[in-house]
Amino acid sequence: MGERIYASYWLETGDDPARAAEVIAGEQSSGTFIALPSETPALKARSGARVEKLEVLDVVAAPSLAGGMTSNTYSRCKLELSWPLENIGPSLPNLMSTIAGNLFELRQVSGLRLTDLELPSAFGTAYPGPAFGIEGTRKLTNVQNGPLIGTIIKPSVGLSVAETAHHVHELVTGGIDFIKDDELQADGTYCPFDERVRAVMRVVNDNAERTGKKAMVAFNLTGDLDEMRRRHDLVLAEGGTCVMVCLNSVGLVGLRELRRHSQLPIHAHRAGWGYLSRSPQLGWDFAPWQKIWRLAGADHLHVNGLRNKFSESDESVIAAARSVLTPVMASAPMIAMPVFSSGQTGLQAADTYAALGCADLIHTAGGGIFGHPSGVAAGVAALREAWVAAIAGVPLTQQAERSPALREALGFWQ
Amino acid sequence: MGERIYASYWLETGDDPARAAEVIAGEQSSGTFIALPSETPALKARSGARVEKLEVLDVVAAPSLAGGMTSNTYSRCKLELSWPLENIGPSLPNLMSTIAGNLFELRQVSGLRLTDLELPSAFGTAYPGPAFGIEGTRKLTNVQNGPLIGTIIKPSVGLSVAETAHHVHELVTGGIDFIKDDELQADGTYCPFDERVRAVMRVVNDNAERTGKKAMVAFNLTGDLDEMRRRHDLVLAEGGTCVMVCLNSVGLVGLRELRRHSQLPIHAHRAGWGYLSRSPQLGWDFAPWQKIWRLAGADHLHVNGLRNKFSESDESVIAAARSVLTPVMASAPMIAMPVFSSGQTGLQAADTYAALGCADLIHTAGGGIFGHPSGVAAGVAALREAWVAAIAGVPLTQQAERSPALREALGFWQ
Repeated sequence: MGERIYASYWLETGDDPARAAEVIAGEQSSGTFIALPSETPALKARSGARVEKLEVLDVVAAPSLAGGMTSNTYSRCKLELSWPLENIGPSLPNLMSTIAGNLFELRQVSGLRLTDLELPSAFGTAYPGPAFGIEGTRKLTNVQNGPLIGTIIKPSVGLSVAETAHHVHELVTGGIDFIKDDELQADGTYCPFDERVRAVMRVVNDNAERTGKKAMVAFNLTGDLDEMRRRHDLVLAEGGTCVMVCLNSVGLVGLRELRRHSQLPIHAHRAGWGYLSRSPQLGWDFAPWQKIWRLAGADHLHVNGLRNKFSESDESVIAAARSVLTPVMASAPMIAMPVFSSGQTGLQAADTYAALGCADLIHTAGGGIFGHPSGVAAGVAALREAWVAAIAGVPLTQQAERSPALREALGFWQ
Repeated sequence: MGERIYASYWLETGDDPARAAEVIAGEQSSGTFIALPSETPALKARSGARVEKLEVLDVVAAPSLAGGMTSNTYSRCKLELSWPLENIGPSLPNLMSTIAGNLFELRQVSGLRLTDLELPSAFGTAYPGPAFGIEGTRKLTNVQNGPLIGTIIKPSVGLSVAETAHHVHELVTGGIDFIKDDELQADGTYCPFDERVRAVMRVVNDNAERTGKKAMVAFNLTGDLDEMRRRHDLVLAEGGTCVMVCLNSVGLVGLRELRRHSQLPIHAHRAGWGYLSRSPQLGWDFAPWQKIWRLAGADHLHVNGLRNKFSESDESVIAAARSVLTPVMASAPMIAMPVFSSGQTGLQAADTYAALGCADLIHTAGGGIFGHPSGVAAGVAALREAWVAAIAGVPLTQQAERSPALREALGFWQ
């Protein structure tokens, strides 16, 4: 018997749960709304999706999502389906249509969320995964221990090339490990991509020659395919060590082709993630979603941050970060590096480290670095010291006794 | 003053609506969570997003989506924002990050849905739009009036190549205009793409030689980029006249690159649309979404069907179909052909025609054709007769008096 694809869902249905599960399995494989004589038992056994598990968790009186069948009660269930790999082969685009295609609109469904995904090893052979991952990123930045201390150039958009380079100068002389473009900064009139890369890399290279430390800058090259390739080549030629792309903006083919072309780590931004995930009764959990993008080649993946400024809970943030650090499969681990951001300072270091169990991450802080009263270098030093303390299990106040930068930071980090 | 991008949203917020609107505008342009001295008034005037309109529609007591700020009341509003084109230039991927990026997760947001999009003419110049559209599709199928009468090969997946070719034989000898693969049918072990195309096109070409009528078959070539190009070339070489792709599975770069390569109409499937749209308080309306894909090159776009078997209302279906037939902009209309499907028979013809005001569409019926007691040819004839009646304004029962196929069909169409 061949290998199978397994996907788990949180399902809410006004129908009998067993019937709803069969309808979903049928709709996403050999069945349709009506029984067809050509859907023979042999065909169904060969190509049909299978209901592997169905567990009713709860029964509620009102549907989460309107438009479906009406009922007196709606059952909430844990559902696992499986498909023969033979239906589509190890193809990520066709996997998308299969596990997350027309099923969310079914009348039997008043809530459906993809919660997990287990793939046959053929996917691990067919797709490259991250080319650099944690090890490659550490090597390029020469940061062997602890997180990469990072930041985002702000304002998000509107700075001139010279202003951007000025900020980068402050940051690299301050000893930063990692800098990224905002996801809104692409190739605008006031800060064209090519000029920005040239000006920023001049600053980064000069500093690297002087100090031996080269900051990694993730330039946002999101665009059409030729643009992305050309921009990548420019970053590479200028001595850059990272490119950034917005996954939902370019799609799977976009990332796959960038990965094929790229000689640099790919910093993957999840802009738009909210429309895929903000309703708990619809869409995607991060765990199955990020697996697909890691297979296609993402080296770094954004996971928000603890006590962030968005609406995501700490529990969800940590689950996301853990998923990025969990092997896609034993034969192809394809571990990526989680990127923590949004309202971050050294105050989150200990909790992040405790929850994650490692420091293989990029920790980006904006105000937490730029707001330091003694300047950017002190801001970078303070965040790094906070991580030294976190890893050593030393309270921040104790660590601050031997670090003036951290001591000062504790006065403005809130 | 330069051109601007306009996007409209349905917003629900526990914050003061004016403040929430400014936070969203700021987050998606030059602002961030904290005031930065470098976000100067000049920079903000040059690059900031602008709140163009804000109208409170309603106030409710509970938030639609959890996780945001808590409040006693939540205001539901119509919000219009605009951005300077200079921020990103005419780039669809960067448009995605700008109008549908990190805003859905904001704490100020307890509901956010993108409802409309107006783009500067530069997008119409930078992107190709559909290469064939309605006119090109009519030319290739030689169907000058009325809808293309179509069907989907079912079972969705699991048929052998020979069984698929057998169905196609029934359909083309029955006089069908259009046939499509199911979106789950790609390049599986039991029905490999290449063999399927060769076998199906042999049947289609033979019939065309005999009758002069060549059915259009939309082969689902969804896959990685090289696969899609190679599959397209095979379809073209075998005399095929259409390719199909699942938009959410390949993403914007996937469609854009396919469009660049393709010499055939692109039949665009929206599998996964449910996770983008099923919650009324989150995600995307179809109108702004389809505009982006038409710019990138979709010729045919799926819009569901009246009295469909899914959870979508008739009102929503017709709004979707109308949006596809509405110019993207005056200087670049880029009209695509709407595809009606799901539980369709001739019974929906008159209402569809009345609601749409034209018959520039593809109407696909599965059971409505295959279920005909006198066979597939009668099924095709009956659906075509139903459309003749719809366009002439003649009741179906009256039309049935001179069409035995339609008369019989009225007995099983429900």
